[in-house]
Amino acid sequence: MALSDVAKVERNEAGIATVLGILKQRFGERFQTGQSLREQHGHTTTYIPNQAPDGVVFPESTAEVQEIVKACAEHRVPVIAFGTGTSLEGHVNAPGGGISLDTSRMNRVLAVNAEDLDVTIEPGITREDLNAYLRDTGLFFPIDPGANASLGGMAATRASGTNAVRYGTMRENVLALTAVMADGRAITTAKRAKKSSAGYDLTRLLVGSEGTLGIITALTLKLQGIPQAISGGVCPFPSVEAACQATIATIQMGIPVARIELVNALQMRALKNYSNLDYAETPCLFVEFHGSDAGVAEQAETFGEIATEYGGGPFLWTAVAEERAKLWKARHDAYWASLTLRPGAKALSTDVCVPISRLAECIAETEADIAQSGLIAPIVGHVGDGNFHVLVLMDVNDPAEIERAEKFVGRLNMRAIGMDGTCTGEHGIGQGKMGFLERELGDAVDFMRTIKTALDPQNILNPGKVLPAAH
Amino acid sequence: MALSDVAKVERNEAGIATVLGILKQRFGERFQTGQSLREQHGHTTTYIPNQAPDGVVFPESTAEVQEIVKACAEHRVPVIAFGTGTSLEGHVNAPGGGISLDTSRMNRVLAVNAEDLDVTIEPGITREDLNAYLRDTGLFFPIDPGANASLGGMAATRASGTNAVRYGTMRENVLALTAVMADGRAITTAKRAKKSSAGYDLTRLLVGSEGTLGIITALTLKLQGIPQAISGGVCPFPSVEAACQATIATIQMGIPVARIELVNALQMRALKNYSNLDYAETPCLFVEFHGSDAGVAEQAETFGEIATEYGGGPFLWTAVAEERAKLWKARHDAYWASLTLRPGAKALSTDVCVPISRLAECIAETEADIAQSGLIAPIVGHVGDGNFHVLVLMDVNDPAEIERAEKFVGRLNMRAIGMDGTCTGEHGIGQGKMGFLERELGDAVDFMRTIKTALDPQNILNPGKVLPAAH
Repeated sequence: MALSDVAKVERNEAGIATVLGILKQRFGERFQTGQSLREQHGHTTTYIPNQAPDGVVFPESTAEVQEIVKACAEHRVPVIAFGTGTSLEGHVNAPGGGISLDTSRMNRVLAVNAEDLDVTIEPGITREDLNAYLRDTGLFFPIDPGANASLGGMAATRASGTNAVRYGTMRENVLALTAVMADGRAITTAKRAKKSSAGYDLTRLLVGSEGTLGIITALTLKLQGIPQAISGGVCPFPSVEAACQATIATIQMGIPVARIELVNALQMRALKNYSNLDYAETPCLFVEFHGSDAGVAEQAETFGEIATEYGGGPFLWTAVAEERAKLWKARHDAYWASLTLRPGAKALSTDVCVPISRLAECIAETEADIAQSGLIAPIVGHVGDGNFHVLVLMDVNDPAEIERAEKFVGRLNMRAIGMDGTCTGEHGIGQGKMGFLERELGDAVDFMRTIKTALDPQNILNPGKVLPAAH
Repeated sequence: MALSDVAKVERNEAGIATVLGILKQRFGERFQTGQSLREQHGHTTTYIPNQAPDGVVFPESTAEVQEIVKACAEHRVPVIAFGTGTSLEGHVNAPGGGISLDTSRMNRVLAVNAEDLDVTIEPGITREDLNAYLRDTGLFFPIDPGANASLGGMAATRASGTNAVRYGTMRENVLALTAVMADGRAITTAKRAKKSSAGYDLTRLLVGSEGTLGIITALTLKLQGIPQAISGGVCPFPSVEAACQATIATIQMGIPVARIELVNALQMRALKNYSNLDYAETPCLFVEFHGSDAGVAEQAETFGEIATEYGGGPFLWTAVAEERAKLWKARHDAYWASLTLRPGAKALSTDVCVPISRLAECIAETEADIAQSGLIAPIVGHVGDGNFHVLVLMDVNDPAEIERAEKFVGRLNMRAIGMDGTCTGEHGIGQGKMGFLERELGDAVDFMRTIKTALDPQNILNPGKVLPAAH
C-alpha cells in the first residue's frame, strides 16, 4: 500500500495564509518560514519524502500553545507538534501543510518531587537534559529510546527502548499530562497520585496519540532511584534462536534484567566496523542488571549459567562504569554503524513486536526473507519485550529498490501481526504504518476514528497520521 | 452534593417492556426478573440505596453479549455489566432501570501462554479461581483488591489493592481486551505483544470506564512467576506519621516491597476483636516481601532497621506460609472486623489517594476530622501508593447521621484533591463520587463526556455513572 493512498490531506490555502499572518504578527522572530527550517521540521529519520509545514512557531508556555491552536482552529489549519524530529515514521510531516509547533523553548523542569519519585516538566526537554538535571537527586528517568528525544515526543509516540523490559514504556511512566485540545482548551488529565480510578484514562489516551488528539504542554513522570550498582556485558550465541530461548528463560526465572538486547550477526559486523570493538560476528545479547552490589553480581552469574545451557557464552561482564558505557555506546550507535554496511545508503528503520514465545521464529523467518529479497538489513532487538528493529539499507534514488524494501516491510508487519504481535512496538504509526493498523486491529480502528472525530472535528491536529481514512 | 442531583436517568418504559420480552424469549431460564435477584444485582457493598434493574441476563459468549446489547440499543434500554457485585460506589445500580448483564457464566480460561507470562480469560472468572487454575504453571495474577472480585469487574473499575505497590494496578496488567461496544460490535483492543505503539490506547480507555463505554467480554492479563520465597510481618509505630515516614524511606531505598499496609489504631482494635490476634492498639504496618530466600530475609531486615529509625518496631516477621496467611486474613477481614466496632451499623467504605509525601498529613487531618465529627471510622491504607480507606460506621436509618457522614466524605475528597491527589485511588466513581470528578479534573471531564457521547450516543451503557451531567 503506497503512502499516498492513506495519508492525503487537502491544503486549505486561504486559512494557511491567514494564520501565517496572525502568527507572524503575534510571535515575531519566534515564527519562521524559511525553507530549510521548514524542511527540517518535516524531516524524519526515514526514507519517507519530506512534506514541509508552511511555518514553524516556537511557543514558550501552555497559554501560547492555546493561542496558536485557537488561531489554527478558527481558520481550519493543521498544527503539528514537533519535539526533536527523531521519529521514524513520518510523524512530523505536513501532508496538508500548516504550522509546525516546535516545543524546544518549552524545556523547563517545573517541579521535582523527590519523596514522591516524580517530576513535572515541559515537553521540549530531552531525556538526557532531564537526567542531567536530576543527577544530584539520586533519581533518574529510565526510558531510553536511543535518540536524545524530547519527553513530549516520547510520550506522544508511546516510546520505550532498551530498558523497557524492566521499567516499562511511556505508557507506564507518565502519571499525568497537560494538553491543549483541538478547541484550544487546556486540560490536565490527572493529579499526582500514583494511582487513580477517577474517570476515563485520558493520560493513556493521549500517550501514543502522536499529536492527533491534543498537544502535550506538560508531563508528570515517574522517576526511579539510581541503582546502587550496575553490571553488564555481551554474550555470544550460536543462533538467534538460542539467544531468544536464553532470554525467555531469563525472564521466566524472574531475573529483573534491566536491558537485554539482541544484535544479529550482520549488525555485529557493523558494530565492529564502526566501534572498533573485538566482538564475534555471531548473534549476541547485550545485557545489563541494576541492583545492589551483591544482587547485580548474582544476576550476572545466573544469566551466564542460563546462556551456557543454551549453547551461548562466554558471558563476559563488568561492573566498571567506563567499560559498560563503551559497550552501550556501541549498541546505541547501531543505526549509524549499520550505514557502514552500505556507504551512501539510507536506512529504513522499522520495528515490530511479538509475544516472546514467537520471537525466535519471527526473526528467523525475517532473516530468511531478507536473504531472499537480496536486501542488506541488520537486526537489533529489545528481545525481553519481543520487540525488534530491522534497518533496511537502500538506495533511495532507486524506485525499484524502495518498492522491494516496502514489500519486505509489509511482509514483516503481516508476519508479526500473524503471530499475535503488533506492526509497531515503539516507533508509532505516523504515516509509514497507517496501512497496517486495520490489519492489526480491525474494527477497533473505527472506534479510534470516532474518538478522533469527536475530539478534533475539524481534523486540524496532525492530520493524515495514525488513522487511515474509512473505506 | 446529593446523589439525586448527579445520577438521574429517565426510565424508557416502552423500550424496557419490549426488551424484557425479547430476552425472555431468547434466553429462557437464563433471563430472570425475580425481585430478590434483581435487587441483588443492584446491590453494592455500600449505603447507597438499591436501584434494581428490570431483569438479569446470563450470557455465555461474546456473541450473546452482542445480541443483548443490540436489543438494548435498538430499544434504547440501559445495560449494566455485573461481575460479583463487590463494587463500593453504586456501580451496578440501575437508576433508569434496564438490564443487568451478569457475566458469571463467562468464567472460562481461554488460553494460558506460560512462556509469554500471559493468560486470556473471560470476564466472569474471579481472581481466586484464576489463581487456583494457574497454580500448576508456577505463575499467578497478582492484583488483589481484597474481595474475590471478577476480573472483568476489576478491569472495569481499574482495581488494585494490597500489592499494587509492587505489581501495579489493572491499568498496568491488562495487555488487551475484547469489548462489546454500544452498537453491538465487538472489538479487540490489542494483540498479545507486551508493548505496542499502534494507535490509540483503547485498552486503557476501557479499563476504568466502569461499563460506560463498552462491556468487557475477554481479557488478556500479564502474569508473574510465583516468588521463590515470601516473608512478612507486622510492625507497630508510635504514630501514623512515623509509619508513613518509614514507608517513604522504604520506597525511596528501592526495597521492592510487595505489600505495605497501614492499619490505624482504631482499626487495629477492630482486628483484635475480630481475629483474636495479639496486636498492639497502635498504628501498624503489615508488610510483605517477595523474592529469593536470601532476598526476602535481607529486605525484611532492612525494613526492620528503617522502622527502628522512625521509632517503630519491633518488626516481627516470618517466612512461614501459615503464619503469613493468618496475618493477611486478618488484614483482608478489615471490613468485617470494623463492623464489630458498632454492631448493627453499616459501613460506608470510601477511598482517596494522595502523593505519598502528603499522606501523613492527609491521614492526620482526616483522623482529627473524624474525631470532631463524632464518627466511628477506622482507617486502612495501601500506603506505598498513598492510598487509604476510611470505613464510616453509621446507622443508615438516621438521615442526620448519613448527612454527617456524607459531609465528612466530601471534606475527605476535597482534602485529597487539594493535596494533588484523587477522590478515588481504586474504588472508582460509580454514583458515589460523581460529585467530585469535576472538582478534581475540571475541563478534562468535558472531554470524557465528548468521548462517552461519541461512543455511546444513546447513553445505554451503565447510564448515570461516572460522568455528572454538564452544567
